[in-house]
Amino acid sequence: MVQEKRSVEVCFSPGLFEDVVTTGDFIVVLVDILRATTTIVTAVANGVEAIIPVATHDEARRLKSEGFLVATEKDGVQLDFADFGNSAFSFTREAIGGRTLVYCTTNGTRALHMARGASSIAIGAFINISALTEWLAGQQKDVVILCSGWKNKFCLEDTLFAGALTQRLLDTGLFRSDCDSASASLDLWKLAEGDVLGYIEKAAQRHRLKKLGLDDVIPYSFACDQVKVVPVFDGKLIKERVKGRS
Amino acid sequence: MVQEKRSVEVCFSPGLFEDVVTTGDFIVVLVDILRATTTIVTAVANGVEAIIPVATHDEARRLKSEGFLVATEKDGVQLDFADFGNSAFSFTREAIGGRTLVYCTTNGTRALHMARGASSIAIGAFINISALTEWLAGQQKDVVILCSGWKNKFCLEDTLFAGALTQRLLDTGLFRSDCDSASASLDLWKLAEGDVLGYIEKAAQRHRLKKLGLDDVIPYSFACDQVKVVPVFDGKLIKERVKGRS
Repeated sequence: MVQEKRSVEVCFSPGLFEDVVTTGDFIVVLVDILRATTTIVTAVANGVEAIIPVATHDEARRLKSEGFLVATEKDGVQLDFADFGNSAFSFTREAIGGRTLVYCTTNGTRALHMARGASSIAIGAFINISALTEWLAGQQKDVVILCSGWKNKFCLEDTLFAGALTQRLLDTGLFRSDCDSASASLDLWKLAEGDVLGYIEKAAQRHRLKKLGLDDVIPYSFACDQVKVVPVFDGKLIKERVKGRS
Repeated sequence: MVQEKRSVEVCFSPGLFEDVVTTGDFIVVLVDILRATTTIVTAVANGVEAIIPVATHDEARRLKSEGFLVATEKDGVQLDFADFGNSAFSFTREAIGGRTLVYCTTNGTRALHMARGASSIAIGAFINISALTEWLAGQQKDVVILCSGWKNKFCLEDTLFAGALTQRLLDTGLFRSDCDSASASLDLWKLAEGDVLGYIEKAAQRHRLKKLGLDDVIPYSFACDQVKVVPVFDGKLIKERVKGRS
């Protein structure tokens, strides 16, 4: 018996998610390469017990007063009450291993809650792309890749990741893709993959981070397979789904 | 004195328009290559007096009973009370010259009303791309290219047009572009422009139209500069802005 291939769909912004999703049984892969999902995957790989995503600084502050470790920043500057900003490099095993971390991300938290109708919500980044591909291949579900974008706008870095992940899923032979966003992502990824750091020079977010002096994470953010974890969101917490080596 | 370059921004869906627009003084170019804006540009080039865009079949029916010519279809089939479907080929000079036409397009009408904060709203298609470029170059305004997409989803055909128009505007030396959507559109247009009809084979809407037997308009819809008009929407009516030869 030939099994029907599962669908991969790409959504370029949380603002379009409602219109993209038409089926009931799918996994959402949330993507925010610069920088939330790269940071979250790093923290999980370095042994954080769980991450509580929150949407506001007020909620982060409240949870800090309850004794949680808190990561939050505004325009690239770590807030005074916080333990960390949002740089992936802060989340070392020494700093967060075995602890529960409150992570403040307005867009990310909104997107996570928006995607709650999905069977599962996984956190995707270049740094865990192979582990993610392998895990998705093992599930009997369609996949929707949800790009966070920037303030709801289309962004290149999340789109390149969507193209790279779509390509890997198609290469397994288990998936098909017939949406225009997936086609465009694939074509842009093919253009970029020979020199991703060169290609990403034109991305608006790359320039924003440079201006803020936060672009040190860029090479790491586009480096494939630095870790082997697949964090998933259970409606409240983000935790490691697949135990692996970091 | 060196004049500051004007901005070109691309919006991939009406669902993202609210987040894209941050400045006050801009022209919106509405795009729906397959098929609304190609059809509207054709009708204006063939001498229609004015077009009244309406969002519902009921409103179209009501205006028909008041004596207007009406174009409307559902899933590619012309409705029984209508004079025309939505094929550009129906709107000959004999059929619509000097008349006012009611044109039913749910997405298009919503997008037109959404864009009412703009200084002007122009109707764009490959068939009037040079006339449009020339007109935009002559205005002292930023430009937002608003793709209609399909049911709010990103679509390839509108994106290719956005890329082609962005390229032409940048080539005038009067414009700059620094949004990621414009970069992506430009790159996709560069991939496609050598063989647009070949590239568009993978577009979902191309397959929908083929299935409905409505794909006869495709070569025309991607043919540059068939006409020299620039239709604009004044809040109620779409009319010719620039008189020209068809």
